[in-house]
Amino acid sequence: MKLIRFGEPGREEPGVLLDDGRRIDASGQFHDYDEGFFAFGGMDALESWVADGCPDGEEIPPTARIGPPIDRPSKIVCVGKNYLDHAKEFGEEIPSEPVLFMKANSAWSGPFDDVTRPPGSKKLDYEVELAVVIGKTASRVSELDALDHVAGYSVFCDYSERTYQKEMGGQWTKGKSCDGFGPMGPALTPASQIPDPQGLRLWCKVNGVIRQNGWTGDMMNGVAFLVSYISRFMSLLPGDVIATGTPGGVGMGMKPPRYLTPGDSVICGIEGLGEMRQRVVEG
Amino acid sequence: MKLIRFGEPGREEPGVLLDDGRRIDASGQFHDYDEGFFAFGGMDALESWVADGCPDGEEIPPTARIGPPIDRPSKIVCVGKNYLDHAKEFGEEIPSEPVLFMKANSAWSGPFDDVTRPPGSKKLDYEVELAVVIGKTASRVSELDALDHVAGYSVFCDYSERTYQKEMGGQWTKGKSCDGFGPMGPALTPASQIPDPQGLRLWCKVNGVIRQNGWTGDMMNGVAFLVSYISRFMSLLPGDVIATGTPGGVGMGMKPPRYLTPGDSVICGIEGLGEMRQRVVEG
Repeated sequence: MKLIRFGEPGREEPGVLLDDGRRIDASGQFHDYDEGFFAFGGMDALESWVADGCPDGEEIPPTARIGPPIDRPSKIVCVGKNYLDHAKEFGEEIPSEPVLFMKANSAWSGPFDDVTRPPGSKKLDYEVELAVVIGKTASRVSELDALDHVAGYSVFCDYSERTYQKEMGGQWTKGKSCDGFGPMGPALTPASQIPDPQGLRLWCKVNGVIRQNGWTGDMMNGVAFLVSYISRFMSLLPGDVIATGTPGGVGMGMKPPRYLTPGDSVICGIEGLGEMRQRVVEG
Repeated sequence: MKLIRFGEPGREEPGVLLDDGRRIDASGQFHDYDEGFFAFGGMDALESWVADGCPDGEEIPPTARIGPPIDRPSKIVCVGKNYLDHAKEFGEEIPSEPVLFMKANSAWSGPFDDVTRPPGSKKLDYEVELAVVIGKTASRVSELDALDHVAGYSVFCDYSERTYQKEMGGQWTKGKSCDGFGPMGPALTPASQIPDPQGLRLWCKVNGVIRQNGWTGDMMNGVAFLVSYISRFMSLLPGDVIATGTPGGVGMGMKPPRYLTPGDSVICGIEGLGEMRQRVVEG
């Protein structure tokens, strides 16, 4: 069972994707997959409802838009340069400890929504990442306890505009936060189904051609360490998202660089978590 | 008339501070000063209610805790090095255009709440800033139209831990986001009462001694430009906060540096907007 949401942007309803492929509307039982849902035992209640056969749950219309699998998080914390091959392709220093930055949550979008190349932009780039969704408030948690604070995992694309990120005066936020630069999905897979988040293949294809082909075991800092580390600097709240960094193969790292252009198709996927697909459109 | 909120942390109720000094509970009329309030004409409705004499509004108990004057914003966008004297005291490059970074909104706190020095921290610092609260969604707005998107102004302290910010591997987020590092208040002053946001004195006192004594007219990039500029990179949503940078005089800039220690009292104030006061406590 995985969590999905469906409906128009900003008005999504909660649902579940069952192991047999059926998609069931859960909006009669649950308000939304938001901070309150995770904080107040929503995951357990949802799993019980599914175990009972989803009483009163109807199938989601096949034509419904699939939105991000959780409500807009209160924050999206991103980890930079967390795979050695990606850190090297930037031609910059290898960080001595995790690099953290934030993506504005107004960038939040669905797994099959178009991604807009901002007007005048020339350096739109992709970064497939394992997304960690926090299940309960984490403040100064130990690495040993960290995974108890994780609700589940999903696929994230940390879209980046490299001119904004690197050529316009310090700090990366500018190049990470455009509307639509933060799609997640297609589903949230409960942590109970992913015993080892460091054992997953992840990939990104542009126009059908593999560009990134990595393995979460190659993270320099794994999920448990990251949750613990970040929680030293800020409280991670239920429903918050950590984007755990991207493996090598981004457009900026190619010689010469190959950025995304309108019409391109971008597929990001992770073993067991599913695939997203965005089409690049002109802003 | 200014907007205030009162009650326990996370459960504040909306109220108003009248010109005659009375503080009136507005919770019978308004749910909260949140994204929906600003998006759907709340400010106009509130001003009408006050003009009518606050019907059915009772006085707020004098002992009530005063919280931040708006609900936790969806994002807090901070502008770095926006006053020349502060940019210089860092001994770093003067930016060619605005430096943007984000403070986690879990740092959100009230104007009279204690600020916690994190365990082991040695370099807790203060930064008084003019806070701009967005009134309606701003995406790629012109500088000319920018101030129409501002709901009001308040006092912000961008508490910073300089070791986390500057000595732990890239990007400032780590040093800006600890719980309690983002107090705002004591009130939100409607934009209609501040015709020129570049004409305000702002100050910070530590243990009664002036440390920062600036003027918003010294910003290298003013409020209208900043709203327009930031809105090129992300949509600013109703209730979002822009912290517009701090003038010279922070602890890190002193020779030798003088950081905050437990027991210190920090007062941040802006002409016409009021004063906040935090006490530093050990984490």
